[in-house]
Amino acid sequence: MRFHVITLFPGLIEECVNTSIIGRARSKGLIDIYTTCLKDFSTNSYGSVDDYTYGGGAGMLIGCEPVYRAFEAASSNVPEGGEYKFIYTSPQGKTFDQRAAEALSGYEDLIFLCGHYEGVDERVLEELEAESYSIGDYVLTGGELPAAVMIDAIARLVPGVLHNGDSAEDESFNGGLLEYPQYTRPAVWKDREVPEVLLSGDHKKVEQYRHLKAVERTRERRPDMYEEYLRARGIW
Amino acid sequence: MRFHVITLFPGLIEECVNTSIIGRARSKGLIDIYTTCLKDFSTNSYGSVDDYTYGGGAGMLIGCEPVYRAFEAASSNVPEGGEYKFIYTSPQGKTFDQRAAEALSGYEDLIFLCGHYEGVDERVLEELEAESYSIGDYVLTGGELPAAVMIDAIARLVPGVLHNGDSAEDESFNGGLLEYPQYTRPAVWKDREVPEVLLSGDHKKVEQYRHLKAVERTRERRPDMYEEYLRARGIW
Repeated sequence: MRFHVITLFPGLIEECVNTSIIGRARSKGLIDIYTTCLKDFSTNSYGSVDDYTYGGGAGMLIGCEPVYRAFEAASSNVPEGGEYKFIYTSPQGKTFDQRAAEALSGYEDLIFLCGHYEGVDERVLEELEAESYSIGDYVLTGGELPAAVMIDAIARLVPGVLHNGDSAEDESFNGGLLEYPQYTRPAVWKDREVPEVLLSGDHKKVEQYRHLKAVERTRERRPDMYEEYLRARGIW
Repeated sequence: MRFHVITLFPGLIEECVNTSIIGRARSKGLIDIYTTCLKDFSTNSYGSVDDYTYGGGAGMLIGCEPVYRAFEAASSNVPEGGEYKFIYTSPQGKTFDQRAAEALSGYEDLIFLCGHYEGVDERVLEELEAESYSIGDYVLTGGELPAAVMIDAIARLVPGVLHNGDSAEDESFNGGLLEYPQYTRPAVWKDREVPEVLLSGDHKKVEQYRHLKAVERTRERRPDMYEEYLRARGIW
């Protein structure tokens, strides 16, 4: 699987997608990550890619032509007839979640455009059929961290990227609940004991205990997820 | 404002929080970012910090003692009597959003613990009164990118970090709507014209047009946000 990232800060992308697991997947050749520097496609003599906004308003906007040319350069690595998706990271996008990560992991090529300044001229997003994604309801200084987050979430779903041990993490949202609290050795630490049932060896009881704790935690921390969970069971 | 990050990959944090704006804020001395390597606080001869989970289950868990000692080291930079918050990045946390970013930007010191493997022994999180935060409903290979995302969102709210031009980005969630589409020069690009009203100079009409587009976009991309918006106006 190939990730192509159009960005004002190629170095940042390179560095953010080189942790243990993703870095290992890259060196194993399971995934490739390419960056395209947007500044290389400036259409003026200042080397800038942004301009004022029609209709007024603070801040600058990235213009159509630099994005279009950068996209042409980035997509030149996509095989002829290959299926790809063009993704724009922006607080104005739909919400990225695990389901979206799974859907996007089915593509051979994903091309990312990292948002900056006030955003990008809408016409080039339409022309190139960009899909806008937001990783959460907060404002960041740019779209690079969101692209890195999306690549991380998608890349770990590529077969072979995770070891078996890692993959258990997927339990995080299984059954629409947060995961239960967990404990490791020692059995007593600073007078705090591991819940007795976890030492009992009674798998049925362990499972029941964990389910109850997962429900409690979800209700407390994620009322939205809890409501979904109850609805799905017809008890809301 | 000081950010202290306890992590298995200090280099990754260093590199992810060095983009233009945050890097500039660091060199101006508006914010400081310190990292503490969790591996330095291993309590066994292998240098590992993880162990099996009580009650069974795939994957390894980070133990209490390494986290506790790393926290002591990291918090040694916090001034005596200083107000801080200890944050654990985990898919099991409450959802991080702009409101949380604003609340957390009020602290002098934030100490982050980046989740890994199957997570962390619950007892040390209780002992140190950790607050767990999730940046979104997707699974990542580790808690470093979430910490970088939270630091970016929080640091940009520190007075002086943003230029005036940047700060307009905050409009992203103003009024509970996504921002309207935007356009810059040229007025015609690949036969696509900038909407006429934006060239009219009629500020009232521009404002009305933008509001309508913001509502349309929110309804299309963020039904959840749209429902909230309507509820707040008593029309749901």
